[in-house]
Amino acid sequence: MNSSLSPILNKIEPGDKGVMELARKRQDSLTKPRGSLGKLEDVSVRVAGMRRCITSTFDNKAIVVMAADHGVVAEGVSAYPQEVTRQMVYPLLTGCAAVNVFARHIGARVVVVDMGVIGGFEPNPLLECKSVAFGTANMAQGAAMTREQAIDAVEAGIAVIESQIAEGLDIVGTGEMGIGNTTAASAICAAVSGRSAADVTGRGTGIDNKQLLHKVEVINRALEINRPDSNDAIDVLSKVGGFEIGGLAGVILGAAANRIPVVIDGFIAGAAAIIAVKLSPQVKDYLIASHLSVECGHRIMLEYIGLQPLLSLDMRLGEGTGAALGISLVEASIKILREMKTFDETGVSDKDTES
Amino acid sequence: MNSSLSPILNKIEPGDKGVMELARKRQDSLTKPRGSLGKLEDVSVRVAGMRRCITSTFDNKAIVVMAADHGVVAEGVSAYPQEVTRQMVYPLLTGCAAVNVFARHIGARVVVVDMGVIGGFEPNPLLECKSVAFGTANMAQGAAMTREQAIDAVEAGIAVIESQIAEGLDIVGTGEMGIGNTTAASAICAAVSGRSAADVTGRGTGIDNKQLLHKVEVINRALEINRPDSNDAIDVLSKVGGFEIGGLAGVILGAAANRIPVVIDGFIAGAAAIIAVKLSPQVKDYLIASHLSVECGHRIMLEYIGLQPLLSLDMRLGEGTGAALGISLVEASIKILREMKTFDETGVSDKDTES
Repeated sequence: MNSSLSPILNKIEPGDKGVMELARKRQDSLTKPRGSLGKLEDVSVRVAGMRRCITSTFDNKAIVVMAADHGVVAEGVSAYPQEVTRQMVYPLLTGCAAVNVFARHIGARVVVVDMGVIGGFEPNPLLECKSVAFGTANMAQGAAMTREQAIDAVEAGIAVIESQIAEGLDIVGTGEMGIGNTTAASAICAAVSGRSAADVTGRGTGIDNKQLLHKVEVINRALEINRPDSNDAIDVLSKVGGFEIGGLAGVILGAAANRIPVVIDGFIAGAAAIIAVKLSPQVKDYLIASHLSVECGHRIMLEYIGLQPLLSLDMRLGEGTGAALGISLVEASIKILREMKTFDETGVSDKDTES
Repeated sequence: MNSSLSPILNKIEPGDKGVMELARKRQDSLTKPRGSLGKLEDVSVRVAGMRRCITSTFDNKAIVVMAADHGVVAEGVSAYPQEVTRQMVYPLLTGCAAVNVFARHIGARVVVVDMGVIGGFEPNPLLECKSVAFGTANMAQGAAMTREQAIDAVEAGIAVIESQIAEGLDIVGTGEMGIGNTTAASAICAAVSGRSAADVTGRGTGIDNKQLLHKVEVINRALEINRPDSNDAIDVLSKVGGFEIGGLAGVILGAAANRIPVVIDGFIAGAAAIIAVKLSPQVKDYLIASHLSVECGHRIMLEYIGLQPLLSLDMRLGEGTGAALGISLVEASIKILREMKTFDETGVSDKDTES
């Protein structure tokens, strides 16, 4: 059915259990109580399975930030005006948005992609143009996009990440910018998980109680009118998704197909991860959840996928800010495997493992 | 009563509320929804109050790792033999312990201090010798140390940090190594918080259920025999503490007196923080909790002091591993204040703040 996506979907293999076992054995032999680095040990083992190597290095890190507009903003679901999507692309390009600060902090590049911002942009060497259309249609009145547009968005994301991988990228974080996109992410979460819109809808950039009730009502209307098929990820994406969400799903698929770890950001990046996992369940083996957003649907998303977040900082900014901080933790976890010594190597007495 | 500590205690001033207000205003004016960086915004505001500057830089970071032995190990409270304290000092010095890996990852130095390891060490330029004695006495049979030794340990910690500050240190993490020291930390936590030993005692390096019950019984015996005075921090430290715990309390006091942020590690570093806060409540303004340990008493400690941890990675290693990762987050939070631009500076439309 999604025949143009078949080659990439067929290329995605599960993480390598043999290498994961080697990584676990090494973690257990290092001079520290077994398991004492908690979630970071698990992350290092999973990354070993992704990379087929227990001592990976990450020399080429990027946060891919995809921007697009959402027709549903016409319903008054956001605290900020629609033009902020476009306006925020410039700080992203000049390096003064929050994600740029965190990316520099961890030694990563920021790759900014226009997936469908209203009005588009003048050609700019720092901005990748993959615009599918000038914003989605209003999902409260019909499908957000056509099925073809949904596939175009996913394919654009695959092209972006494959070009980055060709340049040497070895770990990627997913980020986004799009006024109205928590509404799309909530709708995707509700459609796929079967939870009510009220359960998965939060305050986004900061709406009040009255606006929150209205946002839930808009999402219910969108789900009612569109009736997305939860077994068909492209149907869900086209009916209640967004171009940046489709693009990030493509980034995830392309990374997984090339055995590149993907550190996902918050709620909107989580919606993209759900679309990708629905297209290929093996994708999960390549995903690391960076943080738990304050958006109430995010926990439901991560449980649906089966991921545990590393950070819980009450963040709700998006852009890939959590992903950047998460990449640094992933890198730290792998450095433990690479740089620590074992009980045998150091002559430190191990715990009596017979007891 | 602790007259020799009075000069440093008198030097500790609260964080500067005026500078904190300036930092909060700047956070609120940056191109992101207000509050959207969650705990990191709060940390940046608190650090501004500590440093009297909203755009600090951290160019000289260190983790101070203090090692000492504990007489209570004779009661069989640990999964590892006592000589591991001594053995683990060597990986710390050669840079292959877990904290060294994380310190390199975040660009920090590791300062290793012998506060009282059995047998001591040959002179080594990489190791600071502040040994109070070759291990504490067995707290299950009497006081762990004399009152004089407790004050000596705190003063040694003050000397260590003041020497580091003289060399330019601008942020410090606290770490430790000492077989048996979760027993001391649990006893301190119980003595000060009034909670039962069972509530605040965990598995340390990895003991089983039977050993855990025994550990609780040993702590109860130590509290019964010693009856530490919860209103006298030096009494608590001398009766059920440890030399590295006293030393870290001194590091904290010395840092606070010099307006240096202290990122505290896990359970044992938390016990040192409790001693320091008991000696001077203003110290709290200079403390940042890096992570929540799996040791059950750690949450009780942090609540007692009034701190929220940044990371929750199910770690229980000590050495300052959590502190190192926490320092990186503190630095990221301050870079936001320094490197992001405001709505006015970028021309991005702000949310209608009247609504």
